[in-house]
Amino acid sequence: MIRRHIQQLFIKRSFSVSVPRFHKPNAKKQLQGTGAVPQRAGIANDRQIYLDWNARKTSVFHNFWLRDHCRCEQCYHPVTRQRLIDTFTIPRDIQPVSVESTEAGLQVIWPDGHQSSYAWDWLHTHSYSPILRTSEPLEGKRPHLWRSDLKLDPVHHEAVMNTDEGLRQWLDQIETYGISFVEGVPLTVEATEALARRLCFIRQTHYSEGIWSFTADLAHADTAYTTLALGAHTDNTYFTEPAGLQMFHKLEFKGKGGDSLFVDGFNVAKQLKEKSASAYRTLSSTLIPTHSAGDENVLIVPTPRAYPILNHGPGGALYQIRYNNDDRSTLNHLSSAQLEDFYDALFMWHELLTSSKNELWDSLSPGRVVIFDNWRVLHGRSAFTGHRRICGAYLPWDDFKSRARSLRLSSLDKDRVL
Amino acid sequence: MIRRHIQQLFIKRSFSVSVPRFHKPNAKKQLQGTGAVPQRAGIANDRQIYLDWNARKTSVFHNFWLRDHCRCEQCYHPVTRQRLIDTFTIPRDIQPVSVESTEAGLQVIWPDGHQSSYAWDWLHTHSYSPILRTSEPLEGKRPHLWRSDLKLDPVHHEAVMNTDEGLRQWLDQIETYGISFVEGVPLTVEATEALARRLCFIRQTHYSEGIWSFTADLAHADTAYTTLALGAHTDNTYFTEPAGLQMFHKLEFKGKGGDSLFVDGFNVAKQLKEKSASAYRTLSSTLIPTHSAGDENVLIVPTPRAYPILNHGPGGALYQIRYNNDDRSTLNHLSSAQLEDFYDALFMWHELLTSSKNELWDSLSPGRVVIFDNWRVLHGRSAFTGHRRICGAYLPWDDFKSRARSLRLSSLDKDRVL
Repeated sequence: MIRRHIQQLFIKRSFSVSVPRFHKPNAKKQLQGTGAVPQRAGIANDRQIYLDWNARKTSVFHNFWLRDHCRCEQCYHPVTRQRLIDTFTIPRDIQPVSVESTEAGLQVIWPDGHQSSYAWDWLHTHSYSPILRTSEPLEGKRPHLWRSDLKLDPVHHEAVMNTDEGLRQWLDQIETYGISFVEGVPLTVEATEALARRLCFIRQTHYSEGIWSFTADLAHADTAYTTLALGAHTDNTYFTEPAGLQMFHKLEFKGKGGDSLFVDGFNVAKQLKEKSASAYRTLSSTLIPTHSAGDENVLIVPTPRAYPILNHGPGGALYQIRYNNDDRSTLNHLSSAQLEDFYDALFMWHELLTSSKNELWDSLSPGRVVIFDNWRVLHGRSAFTGHRRICGAYLPWDDFKSRARSLRLSSLDKDRVL
Repeated sequence: MIRRHIQQLFIKRSFSVSVPRFHKPNAKKQLQGTGAVPQRAGIANDRQIYLDWNARKTSVFHNFWLRDHCRCEQCYHPVTRQRLIDTFTIPRDIQPVSVESTEAGLQVIWPDGHQSSYAWDWLHTHSYSPILRTSEPLEGKRPHLWRSDLKLDPVHHEAVMNTDEGLRQWLDQIETYGISFVEGVPLTVEATEALARRLCFIRQTHYSEGIWSFTADLAHADTAYTTLALGAHTDNTYFTEPAGLQMFHKLEFKGKGGDSLFVDGFNVAKQLKEKSASAYRTLSSTLIPTHSAGDENVLIVPTPRAYPILNHGPGGALYQIRYNNDDRSTLNHLSSAQLEDFYDALFMWHELLTSSKNELWDSLSPGRVVIFDNWRVLHGRSAFTGHRRICGAYLPWDDFKSRARSLRLSSLDKDRVL
């Protein structure tokens, strides 16, 4: 291919010079834009252009990548934020006709005359060679780990229902602590459902179309529907994707016991890692088959068939705990050594999980609604006597996170980070 | 711990000797029971007992595993099929007081007097040291790969709605081919919804509470709501768990074009693997961030943030394709070499995906409803003019698989395989 003439220009310094040039962006900075402006930009070789952010930092961007990521309205729908350009019509060896620097960003003209414009902030945010960002603003609040002594200000029902600030406070607590309490909720299923729907729709499962409500009447022949104590667990280990959030509201209670138990699973995982890195690895890699098969017409198992108790993303961060020892299917795939390691690690996990210093108990008196992250916080209850009516809901993970993100991020933020 | 007296008995031969002793069980056999009976059983060492299935095959089972997997009604609820015994009350070094063989299976007495009984079939099915089973009956039908010339008998609406046999035929086709057509469906949203609900409930998303119905009005800020052609893709690449099944029914059409396209993604993946093992590896390992951010209050991305196009289980089997190039977010995490490899592999994938020998076209005339596996079959459409009203639904993966399994497996089968 003929090497084309490339304009290589020095960049006009257009942003405030007071922006620290070596600042490591955090999520907030990234959303606001880092203010980074390159000192030079030009052609690096046949396949890439470069941007010198400063004397020590240079990014390179592939020509093909630039063309594929053109953000003009013809190539990327400004409303749907979907790619409109057909990636496969772009020549794999495409080279720009010209590269020009402007105050707003990098202007590139392509062989067919198409013009692309890339904001400096956007280029800095998405620099991949090298990666310059240090955090991912889409990921949300960093978890704040807690133990039995967690003191969390309850959120007020009126504030959550009627103000964006109250809603934001509620979602911030759920993202940060994995749990939040709302007080002053009317003692009805309808009010509890309205609270859930203030966040997003309710996830339907084979148990319930929407919000559920029950007494200990053994209606579903499940230990959940008895008066027995339940150890700390997460729900839905048998689903490919367990429910993201759970909400409980004890509408009526005349009796003794029946307190609710919550444990910060991320904290217990951290403690396990400190105590035994090898046990942590075992619970992060041993695949546990699970099932839900109580109802005659139900036989739910996850796809793939089994997941570890501790689930990590590709970057190594723990993002999900799946733990309900009662729903575990027959272990029939481990070697003798793996089986011994698993049981040993499980005992260590159990010891930490049931340590009183990790157990947060709450009597959940009527009017006080709890919502918690079923991917992080394990729940249980003490045995009870008497009459108890409880209602609750499963909420979907992606939609809860979407709601939290949408409250945090403006439309401009979306454009910058997506 | 004091070594206890163990009864070591030779097994009574109680099953028919005509059962082939070296038969490799398949899924069907496994469900029916292999009929395998051990020739001897006894103590192997402090931690394990053994079963000699024949002169060449011996299984060992850990004492702890046996106690943890006791299937008596006190330890495992016969209806809910949940573990009732508290695993953590079992001594890690537990040893049986006695081991006895009976016609029904292995009888074990524990130090506290508890008696456990394990059916021979169950022990054979779940032998883990070594693994004796050769297939997983919970996984369902093996996929039958297809190309443009797929000829699939349509299923009749009446049969699906009114008979278990029709329903089973429908689900069998979906599991085997990833697609099925139902004919004779009344041209109403209500009848289409009833058909969907014959399978299971409809998955709610931010798009729709239940069944959706639309004309080309860009209602949801998504290219799906236009008259444009859409290349083959899967939906919901931005969900942590994409919808399992999709159903479409073209209720009204006066115009030209608008045919539906279906491609067997598992077959295209196979072709890619044959053409270039390295491109296949690239699409199986390169993480692609995606998003849905068209609606103002929506910003959905998956957790973890990015998934490969080709997703494999721990055993190495391809189980899910996630591919919608238009919903791809900015690639900002790949090295230059990874980026080049990715684009090269993506072009090979695209070439196979758009090969006419892989494209199944169907005009989907009103009354002919398609349902397809959104984890396997990619769909698209040609551009169209005129008036077109289409309705459809997302159905949840786990509940669809549960429905198919429940039709296949009896209550006894459940006991044997879980």
